[in-house]
Amino acid sequence: MDAVRAYAPAHITGFFEIVLGKDSLHTGSRGCGLVLEHGVTTEITLSDTTLVEINGSVDEAPTTRHVIKRFAEAPVTVKSRFDVPVGCGFGASGAGALSTAYGLNELFSLGLSAEDVARVAHVAEVECGTGLGDVMAQSHGGLVIRLEAGAPGIGLVDRIPVGDVLVEYVVLGPISTKSVLRDAEKREHINRAGRKALRNLLQNPSLQSFMQVSREFAVDANLMTDRVLDMIKAVEAEGGFASMVMLGEAVFAVNSGDALAEFGEVRKSRIYYDGGRLL
Amino acid sequence: MDAVRAYAPAHITGFFEIVLGKDSLHTGSRGCGLVLEHGVTTEITLSDTTLVEINGSVDEAPTTRHVIKRFAEAPVTVKSRFDVPVGCGFGASGAGALSTAYGLNELFSLGLSAEDVARVAHVAEVECGTGLGDVMAQSHGGLVIRLEAGAPGIGLVDRIPVGDVLVEYVVLGPISTKSVLRDAEKREHINRAGRKALRNLLQNPSLQSFMQVSREFAVDANLMTDRVLDMIKAVEAEGGFASMVMLGEAVFAVNSGDALAEFGEVRKSRIYYDGGRLL
Repeated sequence: MDAVRAYAPAHITGFFEIVLGKDSLHTGSRGCGLVLEHGVTTEITLSDTTLVEINGSVDEAPTTRHVIKRFAEAPVTVKSRFDVPVGCGFGASGAGALSTAYGLNELFSLGLSAEDVARVAHVAEVECGTGLGDVMAQSHGGLVIRLEAGAPGIGLVDRIPVGDVLVEYVVLGPISTKSVLRDAEKREHINRAGRKALRNLLQNPSLQSFMQVSREFAVDANLMTDRVLDMIKAVEAEGGFASMVMLGEAVFAVNSGDALAEFGEVRKSRIYYDGGRLL
Repeated sequence: MDAVRAYAPAHITGFFEIVLGKDSLHTGSRGCGLVLEHGVTTEITLSDTTLVEINGSVDEAPTTRHVIKRFAEAPVTVKSRFDVPVGCGFGASGAGALSTAYGLNELFSLGLSAEDVARVAHVAEVECGTGLGDVMAQSHGGLVIRLEAGAPGIGLVDRIPVGDVLVEYVVLGPISTKSVLRDAEKREHINRAGRKALRNLLQNPSLQSFMQVSREFAVDANLMTDRVLDMIKAVEAEGGFASMVMLGEAVFAVNSGDALAEFGEVRKSRIYYDGGRLL
């Protein structure tokens, strides 16, 4: 059997509200985010022992391993290549899990639908504490509003119609999703701000209002660092829009001109309008 | 104001079951079909009187006009370029309506979500009698199973994971959707065959079983013409899969080799994994 290859897009969350349901399928988040062409390409082959490599190095990769445990009927080598950094709010672990789930479905002829595949990746994310709503967005593509939380088939999404948008981003470093979500007071702050943001966005769903509402959320939820605020202000001084990537010390922007260059490497990705899939 | 441009993909229905609901939003079809890169590109400008052009000629275009009536706040000129023939089972009218709805939403800053836009196109299709499930599939992309009938937000879809598939098709001529759907006995035949096809597909959702189940449906539902059957048999003799486009005197195939060349112009399109959108 040859190697199978699958792809899943990255996802930048602009704002969110944590929803703890009765089980992992019903746990997730409401909110809104951008799905990117940058993402994760995964190649899977049968092997003697199970092994996960990320960008060429063997990795613990708990979320991907969760999917392997659930789906793989024999030991496999899973090699994922990430266009985006891990742990910085780009849904990298979700994309790793989703592309792995697509690949295993094909390799072992499991006959699962796209929704079945995404559900397993969602559960892996939730149970490993690496994300809440990324897989839901990543299995749709576009500028995705997550209206109701939960795995595909349970949660509810809509999309804001946008054209061919170039998203610019700069990453300074990671923020631990787990540590933020563990703190009850932080969660309360986030959820209050998240509910307000979603209400405001739905009154006028557009790319511009998504950017504005996300920026307000980052302040309201008390998540913005000084360095992130400096970057956002620099973009706004150029007439562009920017906000903080949830959750990473990172900024995403549209029409930022040259404003971000002084802060770090500026990466650019178009919006991706599809969910994950086989290559 | 400049012209706005939008795109919507074509959709080949492999099999279907007609579902008449309490209103147009709840009316539609269950079934399964392929969304294609071939589709409809629409350009909209403000003008003195409302006018619809299809491939350069002024056209009645009732489904597109239905959308214009609903959305346009001033007279517009709508020019649609179709990659696929109209009235032959490629969801051309749905794609025309969907791309027009995306364009008008942008031109008049209506602030509608992707689902809102698709709902209006779905209603236009149903009320003009030009289609039942195309818009639902076209607003998702991929190999789409329509599990429950109705407009986006009411109907329910899932997708069969497939890679980069090249779909080949030959069109002999149109079949009137309206005339088939008007006949109660034909409807009963179709619905019995459609329910059986969906049941069989869900036992093993894959591209191959979609092709096989669709072929059985075309026979069971009594829709296959002799010419279509000849084409399908020619593809099968080459080891490929083929079935009839619902509803047109047309065949779609994968891995047909040279089998279709003698019957007419063979067109090829990749599967498109997105819904309609702004360009």
